[in-house]
Amino acid sequence: MRIVVLAGGIGGARFLRGLKAAAPDADITVIGNTGDDIHLFGLKVCPDLDTVMYTLGGGINEEQGWGRTDETFRVKEELAAYGVGPDWFGLGDRDFATHIVRTQMLGAGYPLSAVTEALCARWKPGVRLLPMSDDRVETHVAVDEEGERKAVHFQEYWVRLRASVPAHAVVPVGADQAKPAPGVLEAIAAADVVLFPPSNPVVSIGTILAVPGIREAIAEAGVPVVGLSPIVGDAPVRGMADKVLAAVGVEATAAAVARHYGSGLLDGWLVDSVDADAVAEVEAAGIRCRAVPLMMTDLDATAAMVREALELAAEVRA
Amino acid sequence: MRIVVLAGGIGGARFLRGLKAAAPDADITVIGNTGDDIHLFGLKVCPDLDTVMYTLGGGINEEQGWGRTDETFRVKEELAAYGVGPDWFGLGDRDFATHIVRTQMLGAGYPLSAVTEALCARWKPGVRLLPMSDDRVETHVAVDEEGERKAVHFQEYWVRLRASVPAHAVVPVGADQAKPAPGVLEAIAAADVVLFPPSNPVVSIGTILAVPGIREAIAEAGVPVVGLSPIVGDAPVRGMADKVLAAVGVEATAAAVARHYGSGLLDGWLVDSVDADAVAEVEAAGIRCRAVPLMMTDLDATAAMVREALELAAEVRA
Repeated sequence: MRIVVLAGGIGGARFLRGLKAAAPDADITVIGNTGDDIHLFGLKVCPDLDTVMYTLGGGINEEQGWGRTDETFRVKEELAAYGVGPDWFGLGDRDFATHIVRTQMLGAGYPLSAVTEALCARWKPGVRLLPMSDDRVETHVAVDEEGERKAVHFQEYWVRLRASVPAHAVVPVGADQAKPAPGVLEAIAAADVVLFPPSNPVVSIGTILAVPGIREAIAEAGVPVVGLSPIVGDAPVRGMADKVLAAVGVEATAAAVARHYGSGLLDGWLVDSVDADAVAEVEAAGIRCRAVPLMMTDLDATAAMVREALELAAEVRA
Repeated sequence: MRIVVLAGGIGGARFLRGLKAAAPDADITVIGNTGDDIHLFGLKVCPDLDTVMYTLGGGINEEQGWGRTDETFRVKEELAAYGVGPDWFGLGDRDFATHIVRTQMLGAGYPLSAVTEALCARWKPGVRLLPMSDDRVETHVAVDEEGERKAVHFQEYWVRLRASVPAHAVVPVGADQAKPAPGVLEAIAAADVVLFPPSNPVVSIGTILAVPGIREAIAEAGVPVVGLSPIVGDAPVRGMADKVLAAVGVEATAAAVARHYGSGLLDGWLVDSVDADAVAEVEAAGIRCRAVPLMMTDLDATAAMVREALELAAEVRA
């Protein structure tokens, strides 16, 4: 079975671990969000791609869900001693090596997709990991700071500001000019099912869908497209999805997110058992829906969620 | 007193520490060799400038004479895990931060001299440290490997090959097109004395002198130019200067090195006490010479060497 997954960072990576457990023989292609990529200290950092790669490759810091296990921060301390910032983004020494290799390869002219493949040759994530695009896309967030409205990089909003101020707009700068990375449209066209993990619907999956051609390819693939709600009981399972949902005028409810994707894109939607009363509303919007446990508390629970998603896909197909 | 010093790496840095002790009120400008600069992992590494900066700023690994004290190698281990080399150049985590800051600033358009000044703002070396040039100069060494003559970067010759094969030629690639960095010629013109520490006469001081204008400025400054022999008892005090001296057809003796610089450039020359019989030969070449202890075994010994050099300069001037 060929499965295409659109993935953000931590939630997407954990979902993928469950997918590998639930469907060990599947041929999995992951289209990773690059809208939260950022240049730090002259190095290209791809947080979502790395989180997927480290998580599936066994190098992730399990507790925090991002960054490397057994990490130290010597380089960061030295950069601070030089007075070079930003200090709010936590890059560890082992992690730095990834960004150094990536930046060197990009500087040598390799596109991000080739660089990602080279990095994955070490990590062997067991999936084909593709960036959504080789072109630069940067998600900016409009916020008010010191009385002025200004656009900040998504990481600045998310990490420095901890999403503590309202997001007035979320703009994937450059997305309209970006092309899907090599293999993205082909993987979608060849897929038997497309899954949306419980990743952020605005800044993760929404950014991937903003690359011209990807949304259309998914809608036209003629295969089941099934998503899992990142909102459980009117709150994000993790992260601060509610903040960016507000920016695009979407309520932070499982049903509202399904309607936001829409029946033109989504065939099936899983909500958590506590949101069982949303099923009727989602189905009324033309999207088949089931209420099942959606907390990725451990690998077994996550694999069970995946099986529910694949069963819903089979039901849609039939 | 305004003192200009042409410096390579370890020997130059230790000499400078002695100079600061012997002449605490002097206004010292160091013109640093950049011919052994190298790009590693996409980062700009300036070994000689950093050795001077770390040594005078209190950050040096005292035992090995280069690199940072209390160093770890997490980044390097990770780069190796990615299969990214070279593995023969030892960059520690704390050291990496320096190269990251430098590379970022160069990428932002700052010349190396401005970058060096910014790095020194942290290290406060107590001297004005100038790169010999903001232009790219790379010392290449012609060697025979696997039956073929080829040019390798100086660091490859020095660090990877440990100068274990004959150097057939030493070429400071780009030097003929390089311009002295801002402040270099001005510092020489304003100097009361110019010192050549016991640095490598070919790949350190020789490379600095290969930048058009620097040799001429020193020769025409009309102030005493005094050097200290890096060769003691027909062998280099440290490093492998004899290997590269052979490449330029100069014997590895204290007298031969003095004649190599020549009386057109050099006014005074210190040889070690064990080379007392070289004094007459050097003086016959028109260079005032004294035999004194030249081993930089500790700060006191080094400061004593410096005082001898400054006395010789005074003698030349009078």
